[in-house]
Amino acid sequence: MLGARGGWQALRRCASLPRAQRAVRLRVREALRAQEPAGGVKVQGWVRSVRSQKEVLFLHINDGSSLENLQVVADPSLENRDLTFGSAVEVQGKLVKSPHRMQDMELKAETIHVVGSCDTWSFPLKMKERHPLEYIRQFPHLRCRSNTLSSLLRIRSEATAAIHSFFQDNGYVHIHTPIITSNDCEGAGELFQIETSHEARESAEKTHFFNVPAFLTVSGQLHLEVMAGAFTHVFTFGPTFRAENSQSRRHLAEFYMVEAELSFTESLQDIMQVMEDLFKTATNTVLSKCPHDVGLFHKYIAPAQKTKDRLEQMLKNKFVTISYNEAVEILKQASQTFTFKPEWGCDLRTEHEKYLVKHCGEVPVFVINYPYNLKPFYMRDNEDEPQHTVAAVDLLVPGIGELCGGSLREERLPFLESRLQRLGLADAYQWYLDLRKFGSVPHGGFGMGFERYLQCILGADNIKDVIPFPRFSHSCLL
Amino acid sequence: MLGARGGWQALRRCASLPRAQRAVRLRVREALRAQEPAGGVKVQGWVRSVRSQKEVLFLHINDGSSLENLQVVADPSLENRDLTFGSAVEVQGKLVKSPHRMQDMELKAETIHVVGSCDTWSFPLKMKERHPLEYIRQFPHLRCRSNTLSSLLRIRSEATAAIHSFFQDNGYVHIHTPIITSNDCEGAGELFQIETSHEARESAEKTHFFNVPAFLTVSGQLHLEVMAGAFTHVFTFGPTFRAENSQSRRHLAEFYMVEAELSFTESLQDIMQVMEDLFKTATNTVLSKCPHDVGLFHKYIAPAQKTKDRLEQMLKNKFVTISYNEAVEILKQASQTFTFKPEWGCDLRTEHEKYLVKHCGEVPVFVINYPYNLKPFYMRDNEDEPQHTVAAVDLLVPGIGELCGGSLREERLPFLESRLQRLGLADAYQWYLDLRKFGSVPHGGFGMGFERYLQCILGADNIKDVIPFPRFSHSCLL
Repeated sequence: MLGARGGWQALRRCASLPRAQRAVRLRVREALRAQEPAGGVKVQGWVRSVRSQKEVLFLHINDGSSLENLQVVADPSLENRDLTFGSAVEVQGKLVKSPHRMQDMELKAETIHVVGSCDTWSFPLKMKERHPLEYIRQFPHLRCRSNTLSSLLRIRSEATAAIHSFFQDNGYVHIHTPIITSNDCEGAGELFQIETSHEARESAEKTHFFNVPAFLTVSGQLHLEVMAGAFTHVFTFGPTFRAENSQSRRHLAEFYMVEAELSFTESLQDIMQVMEDLFKTATNTVLSKCPHDVGLFHKYIAPAQKTKDRLEQMLKNKFVTISYNEAVEILKQASQTFTFKPEWGCDLRTEHEKYLVKHCGEVPVFVINYPYNLKPFYMRDNEDEPQHTVAAVDLLVPGIGELCGGSLREERLPFLESRLQRLGLADAYQWYLDLRKFGSVPHGGFGMGFERYLQCILGADNIKDVIPFPRFSHSCLL
Repeated sequence: MLGARGGWQALRRCASLPRAQRAVRLRVREALRAQEPAGGVKVQGWVRSVRSQKEVLFLHINDGSSLENLQVVADPSLENRDLTFGSAVEVQGKLVKSPHRMQDMELKAETIHVVGSCDTWSFPLKMKERHPLEYIRQFPHLRCRSNTLSSLLRIRSEATAAIHSFFQDNGYVHIHTPIITSNDCEGAGELFQIETSHEARESAEKTHFFNVPAFLTVSGQLHLEVMAGAFTHVFTFGPTFRAENSQSRRHLAEFYMVEAELSFTESLQDIMQVMEDLFKTATNTVLSKCPHDVGLFHKYIAPAQKTKDRLEQMLKNKFVTISYNEAVEILKQASQTFTFKPEWGCDLRTEHEKYLVKHCGEVPVFVINYPYNLKPFYMRDNEDEPQHTVAAVDLLVPGIGELCGGSLREERLPFLESRLQRLGLADAYQWYLDLRKFGSVPHGGFGMGFERYLQCILGADNIKDVIPFPRFSHSCLL
């Protein structure tokens, strides 16, 4: 995450510079990883603890570049009343080997300047307290200064970069699919409609800003399919929206989705391979870039040791594949009683998904070939009546349920045309039908919910804890 | 962009494999860059030209991995009636050195399979024609298959990656700032309001989905400031929205913005340095990754040689800095007559910006320290009355006008509090004031319009030509 290069070169230069030169600014992460002592160093950050002893003053400071704090050792004469928990400081001094086991380097302060004081009495975070997630969720503008949330946001940043890299390294073109759109993709999920604030104040009779009703996107898939017809491999990674009750631990009105489409793809297995590769590559990158941050979640947030062990298993083993038909048979033979009786033709519920994952040994499970009538119009007909299915796939993972969903898309004009006509959608999707007239090729794709992915690797139970700004109640927007 | 590694390893393996083995799939870009001939190669793509001679059949195929097509040479017996411009094909054969000057490698076909035919009669793109941008803008779902738009989208993808890399390499944490928000950031620009489609159908009397009116973000700045108070350096790169008339060549209702915030920053110069570094680093990366794609724009789209030369100048020289006061003096002394008379205290108009850039020698110009009353509440007071200014900066670039805008933010609680109170905004921004109570530090940041950036480096006159899906009229949404 941190461009240590610039810092290091500066540090090496400064080691041989005369004292009068300007101090070299180092991030906490760079200071902690310094290989050798150096004078003329400046570190800026926020105080995480102050401990005043008779002969020495200890500070821990953090600047968000790492979970670990830098220990500052100072003469008690440098203490002042503004030097409290939460205050912002600039410390100049010498970076020296630390006698303590917990860190390699510490900063021997020559000057401490309090840049910004902190009203500790009204500051909702308290020194050395591990605040519960429910508590800090009440302070959306301050909770990023807690260990847990700053770890989460570093992980989120690294995971975002890792996902982008995965696709770029594999020749995918990144596409910004529209956020405001007139199509609802599959008619699934309640939509947010947009108007200018002026129109909203007037009434629904007025003409729309875009001449037609416009909505927030629920998926970039159809737009990506357009692009897959020119670039073969494309991906997008942006916000998507559902106007569903998001008071639950599992849903958000605004969330991020990774979506990819691949042309010249005749087999569902090819799509599943990309899903599995994406999951494993991104997760390995995150684990190697933020081991301490992930460790914090596995230690204090996730239920016991379980998430860590499970994650190791997921990365080591090939994901399991079963068909929808097999899944229904497994559920029917289960000793467990379900609230929703498993029956061919019905959707798999969370309780079913959980059972299937457990049945397969708490590993990720691809369920393929779902009933034709359960799935949206664009999924490819398997032509396998009487138990008529489409080439769809869901990836179920331990602790979460559905993480990814994908399918081969119906590339054959006659199949798609008759299906859209039966659904009364042929006019609305004329442009989509058009794509099948001009060099249409077998293709497919998938989507992965980014927050679900973070919950999966971190073991975070509540989806509100893996986003930058929580919306625990609808009124808290910022 | 392309992960050649996988392809290359496969190619090397296949070179020594017996003929009966499965052919190795190569992207067009990989095939064109092959170092030596190889058999058992499979290439898939769309036909860009067909030329049938007595003794040989020539095809050009493209799969979006590069601007250049791969030439396929085949026996005329392989021709069939579906093998037309726009059709999708899979060609197997041998990769051989090309006798032609224009390419290193060509594919000697053993089999040609038409995967998807093309109704050439109704296909709006025609073989070997250079369609004007206005023409292809009418076909938002097909124009990505033209050379110009596929080049643009590869450039857009590389520019996106380059901007992410720039910030990551420099230790910035990436933050997804909210898209749906209740704050309008600075009260500038008309907002889009969102409702569930159900609410929109009812009336404005109903309670809102989020309990309060909710809007599409116009900037992530204030949310980024929250995060800069924990991570020191943060950035975001996402969609932003303005409900302004977007029939113009310069405006979009939905566009992308790169925004960054830096804590412990006392000088506007530090912010300007990041802007300049970002521009130069990202542009150099794009130029080195997509030279042909950028070349196409500079040759056929941008006005003559001008954009290319100008861009070289921009990358070579240090950007110029003038103060707002100086700018007004320059404008007052100009021989040119302006529609809006330049006067201290008035905003700079497009005509003024153009003149200033020309006056400075057609180079990027930072204009700093704008009048206090022109700028939003969060900009830092320079305390320099009588000509009272704030520490704001705009970056003006040739051919575009304003590309970036930034400022130091007011970190001092009393200054901010009294200003918000005068504006009647103190209640709405209580959380923002809060940030100044708990370790507030000098900080600043900037935003850069991504589409403007693309226009600047490519010389694209109409902003609708640098987005994936054009919205040339409000009714064309897809």
